[in-house]
Amino acid sequence: MAVNLAPPAELLAVPGITLATGAAAIKAEDRDDLTLIRFDAGTSVAGVFTQSAFRAAPVLIAEPRIQAGGIRALLINSGNANAATGDPGVDDALSLCRAAATALEVPEEAVLPFSTGVIGERLPVAAMAQVIESLPNGLDSGNWLAAAKAIMTTDTVAKAASLQIELDGRTVTLTGMAKGSGMIRPDMATMLAYVCTDAAISPDCLQRLLATATAASFNRITVDGDTSTNDAFILAATGQAGNGLIDDPASAEAGVLLEGLISIARTLAQAIVRDGEGATKFVTVAVEGGANEAECLQVAYTIAESPLVKTALFASDPNWGRLAMAIGRAGVEHLEPAGVQVFFDDVQVMHNGLMDPNYTEEAGAEVLAAEEFTIRVQLGRGAAAVEVWTSDLSYEYVRINAEYRT
Amino acid sequence: MAVNLAPPAELLAVPGITLATGAAAIKAEDRDDLTLIRFDAGTSVAGVFTQSAFRAAPVLIAEPRIQAGGIRALLINSGNANAATGDPGVDDALSLCRAAATALEVPEEAVLPFSTGVIGERLPVAAMAQVIESLPNGLDSGNWLAAAKAIMTTDTVAKAASLQIELDGRTVTLTGMAKGSGMIRPDMATMLAYVCTDAAISPDCLQRLLATATAASFNRITVDGDTSTNDAFILAATGQAGNGLIDDPASAEAGVLLEGLISIARTLAQAIVRDGEGATKFVTVAVEGGANEAECLQVAYTIAESPLVKTALFASDPNWGRLAMAIGRAGVEHLEPAGVQVFFDDVQVMHNGLMDPNYTEEAGAEVLAAEEFTIRVQLGRGAAAVEVWTSDLSYEYVRINAEYRT
Repeated sequence: MAVNLAPPAELLAVPGITLATGAAAIKAEDRDDLTLIRFDAGTSVAGVFTQSAFRAAPVLIAEPRIQAGGIRALLINSGNANAATGDPGVDDALSLCRAAATALEVPEEAVLPFSTGVIGERLPVAAMAQVIESLPNGLDSGNWLAAAKAIMTTDTVAKAASLQIELDGRTVTLTGMAKGSGMIRPDMATMLAYVCTDAAISPDCLQRLLATATAASFNRITVDGDTSTNDAFILAATGQAGNGLIDDPASAEAGVLLEGLISIARTLAQAIVRDGEGATKFVTVAVEGGANEAECLQVAYTIAESPLVKTALFASDPNWGRLAMAIGRAGVEHLEPAGVQVFFDDVQVMHNGLMDPNYTEEAGAEVLAAEEFTIRVQLGRGAAAVEVWTSDLSYEYVRINAEYRT
Repeated sequence: MAVNLAPPAELLAVPGITLATGAAAIKAEDRDDLTLIRFDAGTSVAGVFTQSAFRAAPVLIAEPRIQAGGIRALLINSGNANAATGDPGVDDALSLCRAAATALEVPEEAVLPFSTGVIGERLPVAAMAQVIESLPNGLDSGNWLAAAKAIMTTDTVAKAASLQIELDGRTVTLTGMAKGSGMIRPDMATMLAYVCTDAAISPDCLQRLLATATAASFNRITVDGDTSTNDAFILAATGQAGNGLIDDPASAEAGVLLEGLISIARTLAQAIVRDGEGATKFVTVAVEGGANEAECLQVAYTIAESPLVKTALFASDPNWGRLAMAIGRAGVEHLEPAGVQVFFDDVQVMHNGLMDPNYTEEAGAEVLAAEEFTIRVQLGRGAAAVEVWTSDLSYEYVRINAEYRT
C-alpha cells in the first residue's frame, strides 16, 4: 500500500559502525526483532526524544546516558514498546543493556536501549538476553538493510537511505534508517530513527545540528496525530572520515553536514508518511504568508489531521469546503477569510476566501486523482511558511488499527 | 447505525411558538429542507455561535441581530451551509430573511437565518424564496417533529426532546431539537440546536443560562474533532407560562430553569454523538483529579479524538496502551504517570501508571463489548473533573465521508 516508496537502494557502510540482528520471538516467530549497533570508541552521539508524559522505560534510560557521553552501542527491539511498564519495565531495559554491555565488553552505561511495538506489556527478558549474548559475533558494517527490517512493526517497507558529502576534501558518508507507520505525530522526534556518519564533529555541535534537522524533517510529518511514547531520533558520528573536527554549528562545514543530514532525515521522515497506515496518498500541506511559523504550523497540522479532510483525500474528492472548515478552526487569531488563497498544486481553488471564479471541479479532481500532490494555503498575513507531509484516512487505516492485537 | 437512539418521543407544544416546513429541493428532491419557527412578540432570544474564523454567512447575520433584540422568527435550511460564499452568500441570506419577514409581516431584522450542509456553494435563492412565501400558512405549534426532520443532513435519526418543570407554581415547557452527525467538535455551540420554552426570562439572563448550559452539553461532545463553520445553539423564551420574570441568573428560579435546560441540551448533544457518523459505540470519557478543568478537558478530548483510541473502541479492543499514549501526549505539564488510574466502567485497568495487577484482558473486553461504557481517568493532581461524550471510528465513518459528495 505504500505510496511511491521503493525498498532502500544501496546502503553505504559507515566507517566505525557495525550492526547485527537476531530473532527473540518477542511478538512473532521467525523474524529478526533485535538489533545491535556498535560504535567505535570516540563516536559523538546526539538524540531527541518524545515529549509524551508517558515516556517509555528505554527513553527514560537513554536520554540521560546520551548527556553523560561515551556511548558505544544501541540495542533496539521491535514487537514490544516497553511503555507504561513502570519500574519493572525500567529494570527490564537496564538488564538487557547489561547483557549487551557484557557481550561487547563495554561499560553498561555505554549502551542505549530502544523499544517499539505494543504498549503495556513486559519484555521477554530471558529469551532476549540469550539472543543478545551471540549478537556481537554477527556484527558487520554491511548489515544496514537487515537492521532496517528488524526494527519494523506495522511498516510494510524497510526505510533506509545513504548519501555522501565532501568535507575538507574528504568523502563523508551518512547512512540512516527509520521505522514508523502509525502513532505518527512526532513531537521532537519520530518513532525510531538512526543516522550514522563518519564525520568528525563534537557531541554538542552534533546535538545542535540534530535539533535543526529534526525541525525540518521528523517534526513535520503526521499520519494520525498520535504521538508515540517511544519516539527517538539518534545521530552518531564516528569521526573516522578524517575531516577537521567540526565544533562550531555556524561554520561552513557544519552547514554542509547539516544539509546532508536534513536531506537524509527528510527522506526517512517522508518514507514514514508514504508507508503511513492505510496510506493511498502522499500529500504536502504548504502554508505560506503567516505572521509567524507557529500559526502556519497550526493551520498545516489542522488540515493534515482533520478526519474530514483525510477522508476526502482518500476519495480523491476536491472538497475544498472542508479545507475552509479546517483553516477556520485552526485557532489563528483574527484570521481574515478574505485574505486566504488555496491551491491544489497549481490550480487555484479559493480566491480571497471564496471559490475562485475560474476554478472547476474537474481541474481540482484531476490534481487529487494523483498519488502525490500539494495543498497550498496562503494566509496573506506575513512572510512565514512551513511544509508538513501527511497521508489520507482509508478503510485500510481502520482495518489495521481495529485488528492490531487480534 | 445510531447507538441506542430512538426517534423522539412525544414533543410538547410551547405556547408562543409555531413551526412550518417546506421542500425547496436545495440538495435533494422530495424532502423538507426549509424550516420556519415563529415567535410571538416579546420572546427573549439568546444564541451562541461557532468560533471558526471561516464563519458562515448566516452566522455573520444572526449574531448581531440577536444582540439587537426583537427577534420574531428563525429561518433554517439544510442541504447547503452557505459557508465560504463571501459577500454574495451574505446577500443571499439577507434576501431570504427579507422574504420570510414579508411573509410574516415582521421587520426584516427580526428574522435569523441558519444553514447547514455542503460548504462553498451558493443557495438556490429564487426557489427557496418561492417556498418561503407559503410557509406561514403551515405554521402550527405541533410541527416540532417535522422541523427536527427537515433540519437533518447526514443524521440518520431526528433529534428532539421535551420536558416540563415548575416555576412559581406554573408548569413551564421546554422543547428542543438539534441536528449534527459529522464535523462535530462544537466550539461554543454545535451544528444547529434550538430549544424553546414559555418561561418568562429577560434576554440577558437567558444568554447567561445559555452559556452555562452550552458548557455542560454541546461543548462536551466530539465525533471527529472538526468544528463546523455554522455551529449555532439558539434559545427562545416566550414568557407565556405566567411565572414571574426571571432577571437574576443567581436566583433559585433561574437555577430550576437552568437545570431543565442542561437536561434537554445534554439529551440533544448526546443524541448527536449517538448518531455520529459511522458510530457503533457511545462512550463517556470522564477525567477526574485534575488540577483544573482545562487540563481535564485536554486529556478528555485527546482520548476522545485519538484515531488510535477510536479504532480500538470500534474493535471493542481494550487496548489500554493507546490510552496511556493519549494521556501522555495531551500536553499536561509535569504529569506524573505514577499518579494515573484508568478504569473501563468499574474495571481498573491502570494502577499508578501501569497495568493493574488484578486486571484481566477478559474483564476489559467484557466492558468494551457493550454499546455504551465509560472510560474513567484519574489524574491524581487535584479536584477538577469533566465528562466528554464521543463515538468510535469505523469503516462506515470513512465510507460516509469519502462518498459524501458522490
